[in-house]
Amino acid sequence: MTTHPTLIGGGWQEAPAEAATFSARNPVTGEALPDRYPVSTWDQIESALRAAHEAREALRGQRPEVVAGFLEAYADAIESHAAALVELANLETGLPREPRLTTTELPRTTGQLRQAAAAARDRSWRRATLDTRANIRSVLGPLDGPVVVFGPNNFPYAFNGVSGGDFAAAIAAGNPVIAKANPGHPGTTRLLAELALSALQATSAPPALVQMVYHLQPEDGLRLVSHPLVGATAFTGSRRAGMALKAAADGAGKPIYLEMSSINPVFILPGALEERAAAIARDLFGSCTLGVGQFCTKPGVAVLLDDDQAGAFVAEVAELMASARTGVLLGERTPSECAAAVAALQAHGAEIVTGGVPGEGPGYRFANTLLRVSGDRFLLDAGALQTEVFGPVALLVLARTPEQMAAIARSLEGNLTACLYTHTQGADDGLYERLEPILRQKAGRLLNDKMPTGVAVTPAMNHGGPFPATGHPGFTAVGIPAAMLRFAALHCYDNVRPHRLPPELRNTNPTGAMWRLIDGEWTQSDA
Amino acid sequence: MTTHPTLIGGGWQEAPAEAATFSARNPVTGEALPDRYPVSTWDQIESALRAAHEAREALRGQRPEVVAGFLEAYADAIESHAAALVELANLETGLPREPRLTTTELPRTTGQLRQAAAAARDRSWRRATLDTRANIRSVLGPLDGPVVVFGPNNFPYAFNGVSGGDFAAAIAAGNPVIAKANPGHPGTTRLLAELALSALQATSAPPALVQMVYHLQPEDGLRLVSHPLVGATAFTGSRRAGMALKAAADGAGKPIYLEMSSINPVFILPGALEERAAAIARDLFGSCTLGVGQFCTKPGVAVLLDDDQAGAFVAEVAELMASARTGVLLGERTPSECAAAVAALQAHGAEIVTGGVPGEGPGYRFANTLLRVSGDRFLLDAGALQTEVFGPVALLVLARTPEQMAAIARSLEGNLTACLYTHTQGADDGLYERLEPILRQKAGRLLNDKMPTGVAVTPAMNHGGPFPATGHPGFTAVGIPAAMLRFAALHCYDNVRPHRLPPELRNTNPTGAMWRLIDGEWTQSDA
Repeated sequence: MTTHPTLIGGGWQEAPAEAATFSARNPVTGEALPDRYPVSTWDQIESALRAAHEAREALRGQRPEVVAGFLEAYADAIESHAAALVELANLETGLPREPRLTTTELPRTTGQLRQAAAAARDRSWRRATLDTRANIRSVLGPLDGPVVVFGPNNFPYAFNGVSGGDFAAAIAAGNPVIAKANPGHPGTTRLLAELALSALQATSAPPALVQMVYHLQPEDGLRLVSHPLVGATAFTGSRRAGMALKAAADGAGKPIYLEMSSINPVFILPGALEERAAAIARDLFGSCTLGVGQFCTKPGVAVLLDDDQAGAFVAEVAELMASARTGVLLGERTPSECAAAVAALQAHGAEIVTGGVPGEGPGYRFANTLLRVSGDRFLLDAGALQTEVFGPVALLVLARTPEQMAAIARSLEGNLTACLYTHTQGADDGLYERLEPILRQKAGRLLNDKMPTGVAVTPAMNHGGPFPATGHPGFTAVGIPAAMLRFAALHCYDNVRPHRLPPELRNTNPTGAMWRLIDGEWTQSDA
Repeated sequence: MTTHPTLIGGGWQEAPAEAATFSARNPVTGEALPDRYPVSTWDQIESALRAAHEAREALRGQRPEVVAGFLEAYADAIESHAAALVELANLETGLPREPRLTTTELPRTTGQLRQAAAAARDRSWRRATLDTRANIRSVLGPLDGPVVVFGPNNFPYAFNGVSGGDFAAAIAAGNPVIAKANPGHPGTTRLLAELALSALQATSAPPALVQMVYHLQPEDGLRLVSHPLVGATAFTGSRRAGMALKAAADGAGKPIYLEMSSINPVFILPGALEERAAAIARDLFGSCTLGVGQFCTKPGVAVLLDDDQAGAFVAEVAELMASARTGVLLGERTPSECAAAVAALQAHGAEIVTGGVPGEGPGYRFANTLLRVSGDRFLLDAGALQTEVFGPVALLVLARTPEQMAAIARSLEGNLTACLYTHTQGADDGLYERLEPILRQKAGRLLNDKMPTGVAVTPAMNHGGPFPATGHPGFTAVGIPAAMLRFAALHCYDNVRPHRLPPELRNTNPTGAMWRLIDGEWTQSDA
């Protein structure tokens, strides 16, 4: 069995003989898949960095139509190869073809690529700002080096390093990408990279605009994100890996955007529970177990008042969890990690209501699991009881009083999301007004009467939040064009002669439609 | 002699008996000034953090007119006390009353405060983004904790922690500020803080919106920027101190914005030199010695072709430097630091053309100093020869060829600015086109035929740049509203009922004039 080559410098490059190799496993059976993939060597990474700089150079002064055209051609190619992509991703991740891969994740991915292409063409994302009197003008532009994208295991297309949201945003902002694929789905990634390469070749984009490696030695990952030739890094994955990469990048002054861990608290207010407990139980159950609980926005903790109706609600969620099929997890180690995390929650006072054991059947499984803990106990160990469990596990916190709900809210770390379920006729308004200001500061996205697992790709989305959910509270990883702002440098031109300005900063609007801030007014007109 | 109290929790708090104390010196004479100021203890810092959170709480839900009103009242108070502020700053910094303190820096400072107030009222800086169909809406809002501002020694008003650009931007974005004054001008800072307190008391702003300490133990500085209760930090100062604070803040996931070091290269192209050597020599001399060379945008390195006219240009700049008066430096250690830096440049091959010795007269002085080095030698030790010298010292690099000028440009670290002086009739166009793309990536602000020391306060300014000039290439420290973006978190509202949305995200425009991005269009209209 030969080892697959990696996409470096515009072509497929064989790994050197000394490179380690790995293969993926089928999570449904636990069996190793036949294809072998390389762990890239540092020499290969260096050659990717050099090639990325050549691509960067080739893009200079080009119209944004070049990257837009590539992104659109790539989206088309993905659609043309949807069946093969779905087969591969299903084999490597166990994610269902339907409803997940075919009609949800794949269209989302091509939609993101096309939105990014449209934003690149439109140019408004660059926030051109003209002070015509002082002749000082500034605009966002690409970074001085490629963006390294580390993809997670849970979205083989939509967050893949070589096709996902970070990828699309970085390319649309004019940066070459070096994708570090997730080793969980190398075959899917290989096909995506092949499609990207064919799209590069079919358009006028520089051949090394997209490069991809399957795996890296951990020390090479640290070296890469801190390398002088790198522009920035985007990482989606575990807190431990993210923090190690962050330390390396920060030390070298390299921006790094992290999407690490989040328990996405859901506060269910008593009026809402009285009004529609069964519906909320179904919502919570559905959201906790979507993607077998392996979403970054999975509600891992729900907080409610320990009143008369609480017991019935707990039982109802537990019943839904117990009676549902056990899903297949993504990783070989995920079941044991779930078990360890549940044991840790128990050690800090949480009790299992249902589940808590490895799932039955072949492959990687863990039973749908509900735990409960009193608000008093939660507050004693709020840090430990906020550990993210990447699987179908949720913790219900039963607060003694509304005051204790507020104390629990205050004890939370930074999260991607926070939800408040409230009575439709206003019975919870007082408590909402108390909890909302606390939760607002703890999360990037605040939801009302809605579970957090849906992350719409809209300019108004924030898939971000305070540390440790991410590394910076001002940026989002989802939503075009906002997500592109992470991969941009602010370029000011002071007293530069008109013919030397980039088109976006000349008096004449370069597209006739680009939004620019001219002397304090947003306008599509000329200056 | 009693020790002055610090401004904590809305009032003047005596330092505990065990606190260390210090006094400032008059740079003109080198003599210690009589007033004693405390080095604050950690207990005091903790009480400032708690008070800042109370102020944060008190601001919640308030209209931005509260902070805008304070900023305007403060600007008025500064103007009313201009004479006393100028006396104090002149005494503590040696900076001339005229033209510097009275008619340049003080009006700039009040102008910044008023621009920030206007931006707070206007609300457009919050970049409200509405997706009305999905009912997902996002807006920038204040951080979950105060902004700590470390002020530098070189601008006693305009970058002072308690009155400068970072201060104005942080307050206007709705954050309390804990100012860590520069110990070089504590009396000036004391008076400013008194005026800030009176402005707080005269308006409805929370009393602990502004707090100020004069000095910290270095370990307490590290503890402060990484404290869970801190929102973010802004630092202007030396690279060594900045990097230490950055490591502490980064490790705790706290945003920190740094303005550290920059040599602001000036490339003088041969056509320009042929056309107007004398004028450029005067420009360069003036810019290098402005503020006695202690501006973050001082051109520390100028690069020109070593052709027939180069020798005369070197002599001309040297003559201007040698014949000018030696200015008074800000710090007691600055002359010896200049001497050490010049010796280090010499050790790496630079030769002194003029100066290089401590200045004559009392107080802190260093002779206006010009060094020269060949392009070959520069490229051998490009790192060492880019050391910033905070004083009236400049290095001319004489390149053998235009190609070598490009190589020198490529060898540069990140800078705040880069300049290109060019022939007015186009004789340098070819070389400009070669150098500009390289320099564009190395600096936040690119200037053409203009020296970098003027930093206009305009929305189009970028007083920022790639590392190590700052810690992030996407942000500016000067320019309203752009500078405010550093002190904001992105707050998304998903499915939140209309009456629970902040006014900026409701369908009705809250001011009738705020710019919002509604369904893809920038508009001042309602949704």
